[in-house]
Amino acid sequence: MTARLEAQIAFLREADKLKTVLRASRLIDGSRRENSAEHSWHIMLYALVLADQAGPEVRIDRVLRMLLLHDLVEIDAGDAPIHGQVDHAAMAAKEQAAADRLFALLPGDQAEAFRALWDEFEAAKTPDAVFAKSIDRLQTPVANLVNGGGTWTDYQVTLDQLDDRIGIPVRRGAPDVWRWLRPHLAAFFKTAGASDRQADM
Amino acid sequence: MTARLEAQIAFLREADKLKTVLRASRLIDGSRRENSAEHSWHIMLYALVLADQAGPEVRIDRVLRMLLLHDLVEIDAGDAPIHGQVDHAAMAAKEQAAADRLFALLPGDQAEAFRALWDEFEAAKTPDAVFAKSIDRLQTPVANLVNGGGTWTDYQVTLDQLDDRIGIPVRRGAPDVWRWLRPHLAAFFKTAGASDRQADM
Repeated sequence: MTARLEAQIAFLREADKLKTVLRASRLIDGSRRENSAEHSWHIMLYALVLADQAGPEVRIDRVLRMLLLHDLVEIDAGDAPIHGQVDHAAMAAKEQAAADRLFALLPGDQAEAFRALWDEFEAAKTPDAVFAKSIDRLQTPVANLVNGGGTWTDYQVTLDQLDDRIGIPVRRGAPDVWRWLRPHLAAFFKTAGASDRQADM
Repeated sequence: MTARLEAQIAFLREADKLKTVLRASRLIDGSRRENSAEHSWHIMLYALVLADQAGPEVRIDRVLRMLLLHDLVEIDAGDAPIHGQVDHAAMAAKEQAAADRLFALLPGDQAEAFRALWDEFEAAKTPDAVFAKSIDRLQTPVANLVNGGGTWTDYQVTLDQLDDRIGIPVRRGAPDVWRWLRPHLAAFFKTAGASDRQADM
């Protein structure tokens, strides 16, 4: 029992490091970049609040568990900004190695269960994983809309790119949310485009 | 449908502020104080990993939901350090007012469900709430043991005070975890006491 608990605590101590992994996105108040631990908390709240957007086959408690674990691999692999230049094959390999190391800190039965849940999220095929992935893509756009563009400005992102990188996964898991979000994005980019032209004059 | 979604998103935007509420506790690496959003994420991970420490009547998914919501009131009320001088009646009133304001941002059915869950956590009477409360008390001691004392040093806390403030709630919800933790605390305070005496020489 003690050996099991010691292993569990060692894993929980290691997880503390997720609080030092910085994402490209900023807090809504613009004061600083967001870390992956607080982001994970926030998207779990998104998932719970927007649970009525999920299809009837989605089990929201499994989605919450997935989102709780989904970014742990960033402790070793770091965060890959969605709008950045990323070598996706190299990143996937790093994340696999991180999952191997981190989940192995746990007792065997939990290592296996957590790893299976993370693999399911990554594969994005089951209804739970599809919904979890759509929710994961939602928080930064909602913040960017009110903090002056955030990562869209930093990475000079276009509306077409958002349709691809945000629209496809969000529409897959939470189509009504995308129907709501898309006009807000269009309005933002229209205004941003107008002020760019003004700045050029 | 759109009005419902707008209300949900307004609540989720407001929740972003929990990332700016600082607790007394520090990250394990000692680099900075922890905020209440990343703390919430971390104790949800504690709850999931230590679920086998809960009694058979505990429903871990309800515990996770409680912990997801438990600190939201700090957006208005701030964090009350467990070892600090706090006017508990004034703090409780502030937290009630915060709960009134924050949960009311949500659509009626969700406002009611979330508030009921938070009230249940605060009352600490049901098996789910008792386990959630015990887990909430666990993360900072585990961090303090490896970061040189942390809040214990800041607030000049004694082992007797920890038996009271940590021991009672942890023993209530997760007795085997307390049986494991207590000797570590005793050893830490014995060493800390020895080095205090040395510093006095």
